[in-house]
Amino acid sequence: MKKLLLAFLLFYVLLSAQAQNRQRAREYGVKIGVLPTGKLNAITDVAGVKVGHTTLVKGSQVRTGVTAILPHSGNLFQEKVPAAVFVGNGFGKLAGSTQIIELGNLESPIILTNTLGVGTAMNAVVDYTLKQPGNGKVQSVNAVVGETNDGGLNDIRGRHVKEQHVQEAILQAKEGPVAEGNVGAGTGTVCFGFKGGIGTSSRQLPQSLGGYTVGVLVQTNFGGVLQIDGAPVGEELKQFSFSKQVLEKADGSCMIIVATDAPVDARNLERMAQRAMLGLAKTGGIASNGSGDYVLAFSAHPGLRIPYSADQSTQTVTLLRNDDMSALFLATIEATEEAIINSLFKAETMQGKDNQTVQALPLDKTLEILKKHHVLQP
Amino acid sequence: MKKLLLAFLLFYVLLSAQAQNRQRAREYGVKIGVLPTGKLNAITDVAGVKVGHTTLVKGSQVRTGVTAILPHSGNLFQEKVPAAVFVGNGFGKLAGSTQIIELGNLESPIILTNTLGVGTAMNAVVDYTLKQPGNGKVQSVNAVVGETNDGGLNDIRGRHVKEQHVQEAILQAKEGPVAEGNVGAGTGTVCFGFKGGIGTSSRQLPQSLGGYTVGVLVQTNFGGVLQIDGAPVGEELKQFSFSKQVLEKADGSCMIIVATDAPVDARNLERMAQRAMLGLAKTGGIASNGSGDYVLAFSAHPGLRIPYSADQSTQTVTLLRNDDMSALFLATIEATEEAIINSLFKAETMQGKDNQTVQALPLDKTLEILKKHHVLQP
Amino acid sequence: MKKLLLAFLLFYVLLSAQAQNRQRAREYGVKIGVLPTGKLNAITDVAGVKVGHTTLVKGSQVRTGVTAILPHSGNLFQEKVPAAVFVGNGFGKLAGSTQIIELGNLESPIILTNTLGVGTAMNAVVDYTLKQPGNGKVQSVNAVVGETNDGGLNDIRGRHVKEQHVQEAILQAKEGPVAEGNVGAGTGTVCFGFKGGIGTSSRQLPQSLGGYTVGVLVQTNFGGVLQIDGAPVGEELKQFSFSKQVLEKADGSCMIIVATDAPVDARNLERMAQRAMLGLAKTGGIASNGSGDYVLAFSAHPGLRIPYSADQSTQTVTLLRNDDMSALFLATIEATEEAIINSLFKAETMQGKDNQTVQALPLDKTLEILKKHHVLQP
Amino acid sequence: MKKLLLAFLLFYVLLSAQAQNRQRAREYGVKIGVLPTGKLNAITDVAGVKVGHTTLVKGSQVRTGVTAILPHSGNLFQEKVPAAVFVGNGFGKLAGSTQIIELGNLESPIILTNTLGVGTAMNAVVDYTLKQPGNGKVQSVNAVVGETNDGGLNDIRGRHVKEQHVQEAILQAKEGPVAEGNVGAGTGTVCFGFKGGIGTSSRQLPQSLGGYTVGVLVQTNFGGVLQIDGAPVGEELKQFSFSKQVLEKADGSCMIIVATDAPVDARNLERMAQRAMLGLAKTGGIASNGSGDYVLAFSAHPGLRIPYSADQSTQTVTLLRNDDMSALFLATIEATEEAIINSLFKAETMQGKDNQTVQALPLDKTLEILKKHHVLQP
Repeated sequence: MKKLLLAFLLFYVLLSAQAQNRQRAREYGVKIGVLPTGKLNAITDVAGVKVGHTTLVKGSQVRTGVTAILPHSGNLFQEKVPAAVFVGNGFGKLAGSTQIIELGNLESPIILTNTLGVGTAMNAVVDYTLKQPGNGKVQSVNAVVGETNDGGLNDIRGRHVKEQHVQEAILQAKEGPVAEGNVGAGTGTVCFGFKGGIGTSSRQLPQSLGGYTVGVLVQTNFGGVLQIDGAPVGEELKQFSFSKQVLEKADGSCMIIVATDAPVDARNLERMAQRAMLGLAKTGGIASNGSGDYVLAFSAHPGLRIPYSADQSTQTVTLLRNDDMSALFLATIEATEEAIINSLFKAETMQGKDNQTVQALPLDKTLEILKKHHVLQP
Repeated sequence: MKKLLLAFLLFYVLLSAQAQNRQRAREYGVKIGVLPTGKLNAITDVAGVKVGHTTLVKGSQVRTGVTAILPHSGNLFQEKVPAAVFVGNGFGKLAGSTQIIELGNLESPIILTNTLGVGTAMNAVVDYTLKQPGNGKVQSVNAVVGETNDGGLNDIRGRHVKEQHVQEAILQAKEGPVAEGNVGAGTGTVCFGFKGGIGTSSRQLPQSLGGYTVGVLVQTNFGGVLQIDGAPVGEELKQFSFSKQVLEKADGSCMIIVATDAPVDARNLERMAQRAMLGLAKTGGIASNGSGDYVLAFSAHPGLRIPYSADQSTQTVTLLRNDDMSALFLATIEATEEAIINSLFKAETMQGKDNQTVQALPLDKTLEILKKHHVLQP
Repeated sequence: MKKLLLAFLLFYVLLSAQAQNRQRAREYGVKIGVLPTGKLNAITDVAGVKVGHTTLVKGSQVRTGVTAILPHSGNLFQEKVPAAVFVGNGFGKLAGSTQIIELGNLESPIILTNTLGVGTAMNAVVDYTLKQPGNGKVQSVNAVVGETNDGGLNDIRGRHVKEQHVQEAILQAKEGPVAEGNVGAGTGTVCFGFKGGIGTSSRQLPQSLGGYTVGVLVQTNFGGVLQIDGAPVGEELKQFSFSKQVLEKADGSCMIIVATDAPVDARNLERMAQRAMLGLAKTGGIASNGSGDYVLAFSAHPGLRIPYSADQSTQTVTLLRNDDMSALFLATIEATEEAIINSLFKAETMQGKDNQTVQALPLDKTLEILKKHHVLQP
Repeated sequence: MKKLLLAFLLFYVLLSAQAQNRQRAREYGVKIGVLPTGKLNAITDVAGVKVGHTTLVKGSQVRTGVTAILPHSGNLFQEKVPAAVFVGNGFGKLAGSTQIIELGNLESPIILTNTLGVGTAMNAVVDYTLKQPGNGKVQSVNAVVGETNDGGLNDIRGRHVKEQHVQEAILQAKEGPVAEGNVGAGTGTVCFGFKGGIGTSSRQLPQSLGGYTVGVLVQTNFGGVLQIDGAPVGEELKQFSFSKQVLEKADGSCMIIVATDAPVDARNLERMAQRAMLGLAKTGGIASNGSGDYVLAFSAHPGLRIPYSADQSTQTVTLLRNDDMSALFLATIEATEEAIINSLFKAETMQGKDNQTVQALPLDKTLEILKKHHVLQP
């Protein structure tokens, strides 16, 4: 009976795939890891976190966009959150990293966009922050902007991301389900030679392990040898790095945002951020020379907010002990792996700049491979 | 015919397994990655690199040892090699890291042993170096000693590693095949809940990618959710971290040594070292809170030796460009993954301290799982 | 006779000071350190290095600007230079640091401006680079932009720095003497409670120490307890941090650019960068919580240029050995100290935003203090 | 009258100097910085901190020793303290740094000794910890051991420091005044070409700035261009680095221990540690290539102890905000500067290995120079 159900499921799945009505990996039976997901299997499972996208698809040349992640709904500058950055490979233009590392906090929305749009996005974040009620005297803003290079499909030199697009992404940010694939900052990205994009996933620890949630959002634009839940999909599809045994010009990048409601300070957030790269590794990513692989982790725990102004010189906080971090590490690894795979499952074939076309991950063949390797679970 | 051959192979393999005549993973058909191995599939495929073990198994309580890796056969202090360290998780006692990072070089044999043996091993390295011909005036030695904690099977508090054991490992170091499993510093270690130990592997890039060799040696003593070439072995054997949904006391560790003959300077060696953690990730390692996961990478390229004394204030070197590092990154990831898996395949069940027994990875069941997931290749 | 000369010199000096025809520190007899300066005592003593300023002083509110430093006159993207970054205190918005650290090179002009102008300056650098002849296919630029906060004298929220101002600073950059004080990115800055600004200095090692030149340029905007060549000027002028024993709101910053013609790679450039903070310390800087103190060091040695495209996968370079770095460290420390002091000597009293006035360092009183402490040398 | 008093003081002082009854700098009127010292002007002004020395002077060849610093009197392994490490220049053998950095805490006494004694000292710390009541099951100890190289005066190759010497230093550690100069780990060290040694100093913030205490202890063995409270003592005594314009073989080192009772976590302790190098800079230190300059900072605040075992997975702590760190930075800088100067004032001329003699800082000439530069305060 179980087998019949599985067969039926796969039939349905293959059908869907062909119709390009693409689902997330888990809906096809790809269950990465051993920990349960949060309710939405998204970064927004972390209470208060909001995501907004501005997707720019215009004519034949523009395939880019902006994604904004807000740690909470209040005034981020006035109520900063603990945060950390880990540099997986620094061939990238992430703005704002040194201040996060020094002060251990984040005071702006996190913006993702394309490589040449970072300056514009910084300006937009500065503008947004200066104009927020209560920030009338603010003279310094650490705008955090990450990027990957969508120049394969997008006329990146045309610099089509404008400040208003960034503002829109911030203003449209909301809780609830997160759009994935060819949206926002993932509109024009390429991953493992297939169409990449935005992906998200989450894990919720059992109560016995603290009950905390870890949510991850990724902008995927990197290469390597694709594995899906361990199955050698890249090899079997004959599409992987160095398959032609030729030196490849560096490219790629992956921006990874990790959110948690666990009461974790900047030092332990940095350790979580470092673990996200282990999740990337499990998809077959290699952090190639030209890849800008950055992880930004923050805690949305309400008790850890850092007020800009305070009457007292001290702050009392309740923090998770080092000894209890390991389950959060595993959650980070699993959610990162699944978020990347989700970006591939959800991204559709796209034609862009100079008639370049990047194919979506072929779901029918992929699911066959996954089935063969006993990855699919009913 | 092919299938028949495979069936026969598996039959043989299962037989071997039961007889505890354990082979390396590749001999069972586990072919990790897309790059070819070096001749011996060992760190010693990098020309000049030597490995020596001292294995201490005495009575019922002593299960420990020492492993020495020598970058070349000359006087290491007088002819240093470019080197770098990456800290995957710093819950460990690696000696000598800060000087390697600052100066970009290594001037001693690399010693691996148990956690409480680091001081003794440092003393032995100092002694070895001071007494080497030509070092009569040396007053400063950066002894490099890594460790993992074998206190589960070994009476670690008894501190049974003596200076002579370290000297022996150095003196016995040789080129050629490397003993794996319960030898040297891996004698008493535990990995993914099974018996861990020493493992090694290598990759050789095709000539079109430079033709360079990368060799890795690991001392495995860490946890997580074991995957072998992508197959969920840990889950299917029902042995993995947090499977009982209980907070676990931090433990574990993995020491990873990466050698290459590529002409790579300290900055790019650090990048290779960082990639080794991606290889660890692919085995299911999570770099848990209590894990001391360190990677030390060095280049054995003869043209990059750094003389202790020199007439000139400059040195001319020919170095690989950043743009051509990515294939070495992939090689590092693959060799690390396979070295870890080899340590599990080769390590045998061991009884030790207080009648504790740690089972070897059950090869029969494991190979069944690998077969089911289509991992085994004829 | 010598004393008479000194007396005469001091008389002249005090006269000059009153007339606000402010000279550089050395012209008054302040001879910091033990190494000789380069010909111009400026960063431009390093062959090929160019500096350009755009100074924005408009109406009563705008007191800001841009300073551009170019490592050489060619196409920087096509011929990158070895570079490194050291973060003295990361409360700042330096753009481009992570890529410099990862790849060990710099591929753009270095721009200094005010805190809220970083995004605009990045855009200008991207624009400049994309349009340079030979860069027609470039899709990724690591724009390096540092800043300090001139919001005390400048209407920083008005964001008056425009892309054209950045372009002008780049285009006007030239070799030769460098304007100091209230120019470029130093137009509105404040240092030790006095008017700060741009300062520069250099050291040239004797031939027996290699003959190399180190040049430093600073944008000074930080606090502490001012010392000039060791003399306690801040204390004696009764103007220093915490003199009122009150907790002060964090502010300040110092951007430090170190150039050398020594053949030094990224690892040793990072070490030089780290030494620049020791120079800052000698002026009484404390790298306060709110200070963004960053050092960017590069080698302009023509033999170390890193071509963007190359036929070969390797590059042959001749590099200074670790053992011969110490004299460059001393040169960096001395040049940084003197550059900061020069910024104070050259900056004039300025009135700006909201009728705020920041006094220049009072030269007459300062020289008296220096004389008393036997700092002035004929 | 005041002048007369000063003249008298100086007369007394010069007399004392000749008799080699050397006092601390402040007793001669050298008042470094603007903040008041603690009661003893020593690291032991931080409540609970203890210091112990073992001084080894035997025959003509042995001039070495051990210094132990204990953050509190309890079981350090069971009650760890927040801690951080900053590497000023990593040409050194500091053991235990990576674990402190990763976990943000210290679990052993801090031992200082000579370069070749680190292994032995680690063994002694392990032994001490394993045998402490309550540690019967401990299997992992992060022994923290720093060093400088006393091989100029001491037969360092003879390796005369034994485990018992380390044990003695730990057991003799006590609160109260700290012996300085040629004691403990400073017995055979050389600083700025003069006899160096152990030095200590402290600062106590006014209540309006929090009232916290910062104490520093140094083991001085480095070079540069000596300045005492800003006065160019090295130059005027014609003894400084590169004075002969010859490339010097790298040597030196400075270990710096910073203690505070301020409620500061590991991230902010790292920032304090980084500031200690600014204090070293003010004495004329240049962190030369061969210098192992390390800073270890810890908080002895009782409310921040980290229990090895805990019933709960979280810990509630009250921490100083970033905004209020700057006064502690200044305190760290001043106490480090004065601790180094104290080591020079207190160390006496020593004859050692191979009839080498290192002269003490000549107090009479030094005080003359200080007087001339108006450094001495009545």
